[in-house]
Amino acid sequence: MIDQIFNAATEAFLQYKNVPANLKADFLDKIAEILEANRSIIVPVAVKESNLPEGRINGEMGRTTGQIKLFANMVREGSWLEATIDPGDPHRSPMPKADIRKMLTPMGPVVVFGASNFPLAFSTAGGDTISALAAGCPVIYKGHPAHPETSRLVAECIHKAVISSNLPEGVFIHVEGGIEIGQALVQHPLAKAVAFTGSHTGGKALFDLANKREEPIPVYAEMGSVNPVFTFPSKLQNELVPLAQAYVGSLTMGSGQFCTNPGLIFVPSSHATAFEAAMAQEIKDIAGSPMLHPGIAKAYYESIEYYQTREELKWIKVADPKHLINGSPALAEIKAADWLADDVFQKEVFGAFALMVVYDSPNELMQAAKKLHGQLTITMWGDVPELKQNAALINILEEKCGRLLFQGVPTGVEVGYAMQHGGPYPSTTDSRSTSVGAGAIKRFARPIAFQDMHPDLLPDALKNENPMKIVRQVNGKYTVEKI
Amino acid sequence: MIDQIFNAATEAFLQYKNVPANLKADFLDKIAEILEANRSIIVPVAVKESNLPEGRINGEMGRTTGQIKLFANMVREGSWLEATIDPGDPHRSPMPKADIRKMLTPMGPVVVFGASNFPLAFSTAGGDTISALAAGCPVIYKGHPAHPETSRLVAECIHKAVISSNLPEGVFIHVEGGIEIGQALVQHPLAKAVAFTGSHTGGKALFDLANKREEPIPVYAEMGSVNPVFTFPSKLQNELVPLAQAYVGSLTMGSGQFCTNPGLIFVPSSHATAFEAAMAQEIKDIAGSPMLHPGIAKAYYESIEYYQTREELKWIKVADPKHLINGSPALAEIKAADWLADDVFQKEVFGAFALMVVYDSPNELMQAAKKLHGQLTITMWGDVPELKQNAALINILEEKCGRLLFQGVPTGVEVGYAMQHGGPYPSTTDSRSTSVGAGAIKRFARPIAFQDMHPDLLPDALKNENPMKIVRQVNGKYTVEKI
Repeated sequence: MIDQIFNAATEAFLQYKNVPANLKADFLDKIAEILEANRSIIVPVAVKESNLPEGRINGEMGRTTGQIKLFANMVREGSWLEATIDPGDPHRSPMPKADIRKMLTPMGPVVVFGASNFPLAFSTAGGDTISALAAGCPVIYKGHPAHPETSRLVAECIHKAVISSNLPEGVFIHVEGGIEIGQALVQHPLAKAVAFTGSHTGGKALFDLANKREEPIPVYAEMGSVNPVFTFPSKLQNELVPLAQAYVGSLTMGSGQFCTNPGLIFVPSSHATAFEAAMAQEIKDIAGSPMLHPGIAKAYYESIEYYQTREELKWIKVADPKHLINGSPALAEIKAADWLADDVFQKEVFGAFALMVVYDSPNELMQAAKKLHGQLTITMWGDVPELKQNAALINILEEKCGRLLFQGVPTGVEVGYAMQHGGPYPSTTDSRSTSVGAGAIKRFARPIAFQDMHPDLLPDALKNENPMKIVRQVNGKYTVEKI
Repeated sequence: MIDQIFNAATEAFLQYKNVPANLKADFLDKIAEILEANRSIIVPVAVKESNLPEGRINGEMGRTTGQIKLFANMVREGSWLEATIDPGDPHRSPMPKADIRKMLTPMGPVVVFGASNFPLAFSTAGGDTISALAAGCPVIYKGHPAHPETSRLVAECIHKAVISSNLPEGVFIHVEGGIEIGQALVQHPLAKAVAFTGSHTGGKALFDLANKREEPIPVYAEMGSVNPVFTFPSKLQNELVPLAQAYVGSLTMGSGQFCTNPGLIFVPSSHATAFEAAMAQEIKDIAGSPMLHPGIAKAYYESIEYYQTREELKWIKVADPKHLINGSPALAEIKAADWLADDVFQKEVFGAFALMVVYDSPNELMQAAKKLHGQLTITMWGDVPELKQNAALINILEEKCGRLLFQGVPTGVEVGYAMQHGGPYPSTTDSRSTSVGAGAIKRFARPIAFQDMHPDLLPDALKNENPMKIVRQVNGKYTVEKI
């Protein structure tokens, strides 16, 4: 069966990669249109399967179709292809100069694994699938067992878009099954790349499998992180209560089931008592909402139980596991010296649990920064003079994350051109990539150069006339002019 | 010792990455200047250690300083940083939009392994070293044991440039030693990327090591390929002799010791006898020049001996191993059906050995194309009508290479903006990368986004005023304007 899937996807690829950009873009828009038309059918099923509230799922549908439209526009616009032209010079001495033209080309069939915490935006028609399709790659999508019916409904929408766009059916193939099926997909010789959003264990296992193949392939696994928040005295002095509120709000939203959930906050000892009190006040009545499925709730409470055995922690709020499906928030305090002594305190707890780390000196904070594992995001709450004083700390923290925030909270990842949702290992397996925003498309493409290719054979992006009117680099200069 | 090296490199990194672009560029230019000033000392040593002729080494010095200047100019120009700005909007409803600004940032210390066949251009101050330095990464360079004295002399030039540019000495560290030292460098926790040019065995071993680290890191190994040439009847009908001459010239130049050496040529049976005769005429008196070192010559002749045991081959020219250090060219013919039956015929022989594969039909050629392993280059010699008839074949071959040529020969890799010197596995470990040309710099950088960063803290590339005057993407549009 898996051979059939990949043969169909590969055959589709050889056709799909040559489909003109505007038709590819129309196909993507068609997916969004059909999804939107089926909103009232899909949303209740996703709500039921994910335990997420209807408002949230409705919002996620908007995010999903919104990012599809972003990629459709990018495909039409075409500059993501990085078209680069070094015209030839037959008169160059001592050797004539060849005409060389380079652009990105899609890699081939991509295996995508969706995430349980975003049944729409990071799943079947989510960012990974759509950015791969936008790049020109067929997708073999492994449905997430936590929302099987949602995945089938969305897959059916994509399938309809494939048919109505006259594309080969192998452009998108929906597969259901367990871990063994997922492994077999990644190991198939015709798979050319893998995208995954989920746990460290899952992502790392796929990464290792892909590297042991006869032909290793890229794995873009976004595996989450603890997204530390660094706070500084002067800023806390002025904004202590709103910051504590913002922090607790970001931590507990959606029962903390976000890759960018801020599970770690560094607070100076000068303000620890006041900040702790403000957070306690804010968090005390938050019961938490139902988690995605019982397995996730169980893992959450097991982590909390483990931390309860650690004497270094002082509890600000203990989880109330009365209704076990609810992700009751929990908050504990630890001294920086204790935090520094054991890497277990850097482990992500998927859910609304946070450690407040109390630091005594800038030196202790610097040690913590140096010891920090790779993160999707790091947030710095300081006023401008104290941030300037901490330039050396910022310099270190840049090496530890993909996105550095100076206001607001890390949850709520904007979909745009400048977003970076990725970071150094172990937050992802490939810090060169983003899984949110325009940059995501480039994960599924590689450069190819054509040397002395006849104009009739050149792809549109590289023709002298620049029929796509895209920004290109010609002799090293950016231009939309024809040659 | 290795700990000391990486501590020095990491400390240097935290300083070097923040050095203004124009000073980094001046540093690179200084390296070129000092190399040029030492040309008369370096060239004879490189000639002696590599057995390559003085003219070739002199040319390679020009290539080396030329590519240094290219990267220096790119660093000054700055568009390689991919600065991307999505300005914020405090009035957006329902949520204010954060200001997000993204750019590429260097990864950290890079371990570079040079190549024996280019003692200057792909070695100590070669493309890998210079592109890493240009990106803002310190380099730990493992000197190639085939040209130790050349490597020391060039390292000394770089060291002088480091000192005269007031940079920390850890920006470039020259290391000598055997395989174990190389492995230890790749395994060190503070190494952030690896660049390698050489054999498949060597490159793959480093790739595997790097993926088994606690923190896996990218390995850019360029491991060579057989660079097939596909020929078609009508083109051969018109240009048979000049094409045979061009092929033999490319094959035997430098005793075939190039990554892009064309070791495989597909010829239609209609023209096989004539093409064979023309090649035989051209190759018969070429004695071959001394190979890089006795180990390479030994491996070359062992491969030839192996092929001489294969009954499928008919020899057009047998190697003359009288002077064992000389890479005496060898050429054999095989039927496509036989070639298709055994993957061993795809293996690269480092030296001037080629297989001419005789095909009977377009279908047989298509089968060969589908079976082909990943290549740095593929060359197609056909006239325009027959290339158009072979669109399906071109479609397949695009998937098999990084550079597709339609005239000329694959040797002589132009250094420019559009060059792609890389390709699908096993020609490299990362088809997304190039090791020649402007694109090489991006191998050593990853994106970082700054959210709501105060203007005083923003890097120059992302400031509203655009002080570097670089092309940036603002709200999805390319512009050099300030914001």
